[in-house]
Amino acid sequence: MTVDMAVLEANIRRMAGLVGATGARLRPHIKTHKTPEIAHMQLRNGSAGLTVAKLGEAEVMADAGFDDIFIANELVGPTKLRRLVGLSRRISVRSCVDSIAGASMLSEAAVAHELMFEVLLDINTGLDRTGVAPKEARGFARSISALPGIRLVGVFSYAGYRPATPSPEERERWARREAETAVRVADELRRDGVHVSEISVAGTATAPFAATVPGVTEVRPGTYVFNDIGYARLGLCDPSQCALTIKTTVVSRPSRDRAVIDAGSKVLALDKRVVCGREPGYGFIKQWPAARIEALWEEHGVIRVTADGPGPGVGDVLDVIPNHVCPTVNLADRWYGIKAGVVDGEFTILGRGKSR
Amino acid sequence: MTVDMAVLEANIRRMAGLVGATGARLRPHIKTHKTPEIAHMQLRNGSAGLTVAKLGEAEVMADAGFDDIFIANELVGPTKLRRLVGLSRRISVRSCVDSIAGASMLSEAAVAHELMFEVLLDINTGLDRTGVAPKEARGFARSISALPGIRLVGVFSYAGYRPATPSPEERERWARREAETAVRVADELRRDGVHVSEISVAGTATAPFAATVPGVTEVRPGTYVFNDIGYARLGLCDPSQCALTIKTTVVSRPSRDRAVIDAGSKVLALDKRVVCGREPGYGFIKQWPAARIEALWEEHGVIRVTADGPGPGVGDVLDVIPNHVCPTVNLADRWYGIKAGVVDGEFTILGRGKSR
Repeated sequence: MTVDMAVLEANIRRMAGLVGATGARLRPHIKTHKTPEIAHMQLRNGSAGLTVAKLGEAEVMADAGFDDIFIANELVGPTKLRRLVGLSRRISVRSCVDSIAGASMLSEAAVAHELMFEVLLDINTGLDRTGVAPKEARGFARSISALPGIRLVGVFSYAGYRPATPSPEERERWARREAETAVRVADELRRDGVHVSEISVAGTATAPFAATVPGVTEVRPGTYVFNDIGYARLGLCDPSQCALTIKTTVVSRPSRDRAVIDAGSKVLALDKRVVCGREPGYGFIKQWPAARIEALWEEHGVIRVTADGPGPGVGDVLDVIPNHVCPTVNLADRWYGIKAGVVDGEFTILGRGKSR
Repeated sequence: MTVDMAVLEANIRRMAGLVGATGARLRPHIKTHKTPEIAHMQLRNGSAGLTVAKLGEAEVMADAGFDDIFIANELVGPTKLRRLVGLSRRISVRSCVDSIAGASMLSEAAVAHELMFEVLLDINTGLDRTGVAPKEARGFARSISALPGIRLVGVFSYAGYRPATPSPEERERWARREAETAVRVADELRRDGVHVSEISVAGTATAPFAATVPGVTEVRPGTYVFNDIGYARLGLCDPSQCALTIKTTVVSRPSRDRAVIDAGSKVLALDKRVVCGREPGYGFIKQWPAARIEALWEEHGVIRVTADGPGPGVGDVLDVIPNHVCPTVNLADRWYGIKAGVVDGEFTILGRGKSR
């Protein structure tokens, strides 16, 4: 797995510039790269703290010197609460709530350890994953306001972005809808006397637009550091702005129209959210844009070779841009940085597999 | 991730018994567990050597003391050949060929290092992945017979098994077709003077049947150690014979029919080859058999809660049997052994991520 360092740096600077021009702060999500060195690059380019998906990722980043981390997830159960107590004594950390049961657990742990946990209220802005319905936010906030040891300091939302026919206008509408809902809920909570200082919304696709909505205090893009063919298909980047590629070798050429590479689902992940050109596939082959990775076995990728030329031969090394870069990175232990065409640095993905 | 040690041991003994009653040897595939301790259990139960998918797995198992390893894959390119040279000097190792180009590379590396690489001829018995067509096997063997430094010692095949309507009869037919094709090709090669000592076929679904076909010398089941809901669906096991479960916590209960767990595609993998009951899903929840994991985000699993009862609540710990256990194991760094209901041992998945 290689990363073009010049592309990586340009991607980091571009997002920093877009968000920096607005009233909101940039709190990048590190679930994409899980690599402390990249988080430091983001911080040097104007990020205000980090976002993580899991406690395990927060612990890795705290060990790497980061002291302001938002865990964009609900933390439930005795093991996680014990770890949250430990982490809270080292750094500034916030998490999310969307249930009375979850909030009560946080409250009890905080009281038992004489701590105050700051939390953001997770609202569902259309993804139908976690989050209370916006119209129930006031009632929910009232219910948990009496709990000792936790302090509601903000509103959290992630609506994703995956329309069938993407356009900049559609993306902006999507981004504004999420951000405006969060701002409206925050205003309602404020009228009830809750001191809501954070309105945290959006990801890579929507952050530049959401950040312009008045009231939004921070956005959390993650994938932009590497980009991927899924995002290129959404018009978010050009394939040349995809920093990460998988180097794979053709190990078999059993028929005229079939080539087999040594990268399967244990290297590329099975995410199939993308259409490369017109045909769906499991990634984009730089050297053979018309070829399609039509099947992924655990350790084999089967390429359907189409019209243009004889296709790759046994021994050829191909560069594949993954469909979805986040789970792909999570399969590897390290990546190699490329500068001016040569390997210049090996990086350990310290947050890999930290899903607990 | 927990493994019921009693179920694991019973699975290992059952397959050893089934294959031991035939004329073929058992060379289990370790790609499922990637854990040396389990490979040692398999060896103690009558396995003759190990099968691996990748050089990296072979290196891990050689470090763990195994000295007879078959790499069921084509090894192509200078880096892999350099590593194969090193491994060949430590242990007995064989790999596959299915192209003149690949065989020539092996030959050149062998000559350069004064080694003899033993290889099996990979034939395509219907999977359309790697492998030469059976009718081209004689011509291919003749073409590579003149190459110095490599010795063709066997025939290799893997046809998989995934019919729409499984039955023991259908499975036996599938297994026999693969095995008989391999035996026929081997006989043709023998008539041409090639000393074919190995006929290596089949996986978990087909091994017990294939092993009874006269001429077959070894079978390579892998998944049987853990089993999974995909295999239960194929009638290969009962859910109670699935040794590995993912422990996950309900972190959100945002609506009456939706519960969210803290296991997503970075824990369970995206393989969707299974139908749990009638509806497809991303795994089987032991405590709520009628509930369906209908979506996997990177770190969230969204459960559709159906009729029977209120469904799981925030804080509940659920046991999920994965759809496909092999890529699921490959996402984790370790697993915990359970004996008589309590944790008894922590095991490191040393072969995890060794896809090179």
